[in-house]
Amino acid sequence: MAEQEEHPKTDQHANVLIIAGSETDANIYYASRFLAPDPFIYLQVHGKSLLLMSDLEVDRARAQSTVDQVLPYSEYEAKTKISGLAAPSLTDVLHVLMAEHAVSEWVVPANFPLRHADQLRKLGHTLITKNEPFFEQRSLKTPQEVDAIRQAQIAVEAALDSTLDLLRQSEIKDGLLLLGGEALTSESVRRHLDLALMKKGCIAQHTIVSCGVDACDPHNEGSGPLRANQSIIFDIFPRSNETRYHADMTRTVVKGKAPDTIKRLYDTVLEGQLLGIQQVKSGANGKDIHQSIMNYFEERGYQTGLIDGRMQGFFHGTGHGIGLDIHEPPRISRVDHLLQEGEVVTVEPGLYYPKIGAVRIEDMVLVEKEGCRNLTTYPKFLELD
Amino acid sequence: MAEQEEHPKTDQHANVLIIAGSETDANIYYASRFLAPDPFIYLQVHGKSLLLMSDLEVDRARAQSTVDQVLPYSEYEAKTKISGLAAPSLTDVLHVLMAEHAVSEWVVPANFPLRHADQLRKLGHTLITKNEPFFEQRSLKTPQEVDAIRQAQIAVEAALDSTLDLLRQSEIKDGLLLLGGEALTSESVRRHLDLALMKKGCIAQHTIVSCGVDACDPHNEGSGPLRANQSIIFDIFPRSNETRYHADMTRTVVKGKAPDTIKRLYDTVLEGQLLGIQQVKSGANGKDIHQSIMNYFEERGYQTGLIDGRMQGFFHGTGHGIGLDIHEPPRISRVDHLLQEGEVVTVEPGLYYPKIGAVRIEDMVLVEKEGCRNLTTYPKFLELD
Repeated sequence: MAEQEEHPKTDQHANVLIIAGSETDANIYYASRFLAPDPFIYLQVHGKSLLLMSDLEVDRARAQSTVDQVLPYSEYEAKTKISGLAAPSLTDVLHVLMAEHAVSEWVVPANFPLRHADQLRKLGHTLITKNEPFFEQRSLKTPQEVDAIRQAQIAVEAALDSTLDLLRQSEIKDGLLLLGGEALTSESVRRHLDLALMKKGCIAQHTIVSCGVDACDPHNEGSGPLRANQSIIFDIFPRSNETRYHADMTRTVVKGKAPDTIKRLYDTVLEGQLLGIQQVKSGANGKDIHQSIMNYFEERGYQTGLIDGRMQGFFHGTGHGIGLDIHEPPRISRVDHLLQEGEVVTVEPGLYYPKIGAVRIEDMVLVEKEGCRNLTTYPKFLELD
Repeated sequence: MAEQEEHPKTDQHANVLIIAGSETDANIYYASRFLAPDPFIYLQVHGKSLLLMSDLEVDRARAQSTVDQVLPYSEYEAKTKISGLAAPSLTDVLHVLMAEHAVSEWVVPANFPLRHADQLRKLGHTLITKNEPFFEQRSLKTPQEVDAIRQAQIAVEAALDSTLDLLRQSEIKDGLLLLGGEALTSESVRRHLDLALMKKGCIAQHTIVSCGVDACDPHNEGSGPLRANQSIIFDIFPRSNETRYHADMTRTVVKGKAPDTIKRLYDTVLEGQLLGIQQVKSGANGKDIHQSIMNYFEERGYQTGLIDGRMQGFFHGTGHGIGLDIHEPPRISRVDHLLQEGEVVTVEPGLYYPKIGAVRIEDMVLVEKEGCRNLTTYPKFLELD
């Protein structure tokens, strides 16, 4: 079994193997720019990129992918049969192709499928896993990639704007938000948001519209009637259908009057977020940024930890990279990471106390040499006018 | 390194380990019924199911998942540190939990991440991969699962119906389909379909609306103006937001007058499809069903293979299982598979000839003891009235 190596460089000199479906695996999509529902095979060998594709996909792959060459699986399957195997497995067929290139050492992603790995190792191949970012350049966004993210963000901002208009137009009655005689709910507002996003070419899943105690669980999507005078979190993170890049934004609002406890919570989170954004620049350590926000919250009297048997305070990371995946390297968290020019990261501290409410505020920023560019232009306010 | 075993049973006596994100990995979702964007850890140990969850997700997992116990990752991380590791990896932490249960042999899915596997093996664990279906019972749908698929299918049929109305209402001018002065395109019609699906609680991606030569590539999504007197393929396969189960249906239509060549192609595919459906029952071999359709097409003079440098004829499988994944076991294809009562499979032969056009017709059927139940109720017709 190959020894682990911490960071082999996935450069032109490494021979790379990925087996995955590009619908769910952003690395193989990044490498091939080819979308297919079922797993396929990508190789980078002697500096050349190859796909080995089923008959069903071979012509489409030739037309759509960016690799140097698309090879038909059936052709290599036939060669494998000639070599004496009646019912060759995928790895048997791949082995024949690999032998043609006289390569037996491969860098593979950390999530490379174990069964294929075991079979290839039995056939004499050495597989070395490499952690994310598998392709370093995936973290460093090109101007085109930044533009794709910004385009998705424009859709997010328009969708939130039209959604907050619903809340603005609603009337408060018995603590509920009534519009056209119906109470606005997490579900109905989420549907409005997701439809608005789809009309702008974005697919949203698990959009968070959560209110009150629900929102104190950061990944709770929210359910039931929205309530006046409580904080409502909108966390919106769709993918563009056209480019497959994501945007990600969170805003917290109150319909009606925000109690002082929520106002103070909001101001603290906003100050914490600005403190974070202010420190983002090439060379800054994400761990320091995260810790400084944590410290600021504690100075303001907001403790983090297990309280009454549940996690309260600020118990998630400050931010994450974004691109073809909604969560991708780097993290701004408890772990060391020196930010690099070209990374796009979220900055999204939050504070969660079931007895008060929840506040999270999130922007996306592009790391630059001397600071960062905020890709989010939506205003920040607590009470709806 | 553990030897491969072909089919260990993932029953109550096997100790099972999965590390995956449930948004993209249906096995961990099936086992936990818990949705989270980032990878988490599922164990089945001594007949008990466990999740090891980050602080961020632990409370939500306790509320939403169906496992016996949810353990906080941070608690085991602290234990690992006490044992002397300053910066324990995920597998170090998992190893401490595994040691508490005195288990070191694990059945894992074929797609188990290689890096974690290598690390666990180094720590003395034996990992045995098991091919799909990892959980045999996932292929055998319960009445609730069949109902979830059928509910998604109802949305598909309503969405296609309203979409075909657009084509019905359109006027033919210069070979294009004009509606309100605009030419209907693959893109505009797909947008209509996807919005109709979303309004019914389904998420569609890569819906196929392809016309003419585009449609001769079975996974081409289609682009540009739809044309009169050519075959147009609609392949619709969304997932229900609520249940996460999929439906999948394909219909082929012509606006205007279908040429005789397309009519004959359509009749042949339809006959082939009915021939397939007729053979579906418990114990039937999928390979025989696939071959009989292939034979029928050849009898009717429709050859399959490389013609003028591209694949033509019937060059994909007859069908696939469907459920939490759009493509899941079993396949009805060149490979042996004895159908079992409770499987839900598509039957979707197609014929593709750039000089004629493309036809594919797809229903979903539930395998029964003496036949099958068609879960698709949408009519089949070629020309729009």
